[in-house]
Amino acid sequence: MEKEFIKLIKSTLNSEYIGDDCAYLKDLEIVVSQDSLVEDVHFIKDKISPYSLGRKTAAVNISDICASGADPAYMTVSLSAPSNTPKSFIKKFYDGLISVYDKIKIVGGDLTKADKIYISASIIGKTQDRNISSRKNAQIGQKVVISGFHGSSATGLMLLKNSKTEPENLIKAHLEPKPQTDFSKKIATTQKTPYAMIDTSDGLMDGLSQIAEQSDVLLDIDFSKIPVEKEVKAFDNWEERVLFGGEDYGLIATIDNPTDDMNVIGEVKKGSGVLINGRLFSAKDVENNSYKHFT
Amino acid sequence: MEKEFIKLIKSTLNSEYIGDDCAYLKDLEIVVSQDSLVEDVHFIKDKISPYSLGRKTAAVNISDICASGADPAYMTVSLSAPSNTPKSFIKKFYDGLISVYDKIKIVGGDLTKADKIYISASIIGKTQDRNISSRKNAQIGQKVVISGFHGSSATGLMLLKNSKTEPENLIKAHLEPKPQTDFSKKIATTQKTPYAMIDTSDGLMDGLSQIAEQSDVLLDIDFSKIPVEKEVKAFDNWEERVLFGGEDYGLIATIDNPTDDMNVIGEVKKGSGVLINGRLFSAKDVENNSYKHFT
Repeated sequence: MEKEFIKLIKSTLNSEYIGDDCAYLKDLEIVVSQDSLVEDVHFIKDKISPYSLGRKTAAVNISDICASGADPAYMTVSLSAPSNTPKSFIKKFYDGLISVYDKIKIVGGDLTKADKIYISASIIGKTQDRNISSRKNAQIGQKVVISGFHGSSATGLMLLKNSKTEPENLIKAHLEPKPQTDFSKKIATTQKTPYAMIDTSDGLMDGLSQIAEQSDVLLDIDFSKIPVEKEVKAFDNWEERVLFGGEDYGLIATIDNPTDDMNVIGEVKKGSGVLINGRLFSAKDVENNSYKHFT
Repeated sequence: MEKEFIKLIKSTLNSEYIGDDCAYLKDLEIVVSQDSLVEDVHFIKDKISPYSLGRKTAAVNISDICASGADPAYMTVSLSAPSNTPKSFIKKFYDGLISVYDKIKIVGGDLTKADKIYISASIIGKTQDRNISSRKNAQIGQKVVISGFHGSSATGLMLLKNSKTEPENLIKAHLEPKPQTDFSKKIATTQKTPYAMIDTSDGLMDGLSQIAEQSDVLLDIDFSKIPVEKEVKAFDNWEERVLFGGEDYGLIATIDNPTDDMNVIGEVKKGSGVLINGRLFSAKDVENNSYKHFT
């Protein structure tokens, strides 16, 4: 349903900007993005602390800017909550919000009443001296590089649901995600040619598939090259969590000139979809969550 | 309650930006603002058309930028709505959104599910070649100028509640408010000294009181100078609607050099509060809605 609506909105607005996570406003040398978190849709109030909710809000938005290659700089945050919300909730939410990345400034927003918690944050990244990505930029022959461990957050969530508190690194990966600001900066300042970059907040496969679809190419991936923490591999079907588990807030990019310290996991080829160890996933497969067939 | 929460947020964020409607980001030569509209808090779904809701969303946000003196340029909009929301609702909402001011571009946002309708819009204004206002800038001796008719929107709303459809100009004032982009530009480009400006979306008295309080001055106003449409005066207690009725989206400013075509309604003096025809309203009076005693 959402895709259909977005198509409708695009045609109504007749805007060249809607499509990537961020809109690139060249005249102002900034990118902007806005993301919302709705109670009972994106989180369950009783299952997340206000501190973690603040972190998640910041992580989602900062990660969008990282995917563009810009420098996360300013954020505004609207928080709507029931009128009986305790002061401590608000305090901890904002503590979480500012804990993710110390260079970002919260410069405004509003606070309103609502039946449920609703958060919408808007973020601005600076583009000066940076090469800005687009999902449409993947070119045949480019290397696919990745940053961040994958599967850790989904495994951490699974453990939390079973009331486990360790392994600590996996729990932390889920509760305190860190957007890839350093990797983003490295790509945006070392790459001089057009490149595609996306975050893996909706899953690694989703990110790969989005780039493949919007650039009209095939991404040929060697699964064994994907960085995975050893604790993740201790659980059944761990490969599914690596490819389809979300909220790792890693980055993937297709670039011409990887440096020695980058993890190359594959190559951009002619075709369409994502090839993992020889098995093809079409955009439709990914949309329909056909991941159950992977392992 | 909200004031206490905002104080808490300010102290948590330790931010110099929170206070005016817009945050002025000097390094980027922009102002930014974010405002939300929540179903059953800011509007009743059955009482407003999706087109009017789109207009209201745009008007609220564009008016915030106008109050700063900046040039409204880009907007992102997050819309959350129940999954059974018809396509026609979305279409009409966006039609309304783009109908308010043809120079603003909608460049992003997101669309999510929610139990109720929740809208949050973020807006960017350009500050190049413009003198930017602050509510703290009112100086003793400055003139108070006003733009737009007041009381029209509140009278229009009253008529709509009584199922009336005329006088048309009052109904239209409520359903199709127009932010004061021309007046804002004139102030920001002709005034070379610091000035205060605010919109009257929460009422004319509220705007006057905010400037008086934050600049620590008295605003001495001659009620008879406030532009009021003659149809407004046909209803009992119309003066209350002029002073306290909201959503006219006019502008008031305190400036050193009004031009001949500006409506001067008063002067900035030593003291505190707002003096209307010799009657003093303190900030507390205005906060506590003591307006019932005016007429």
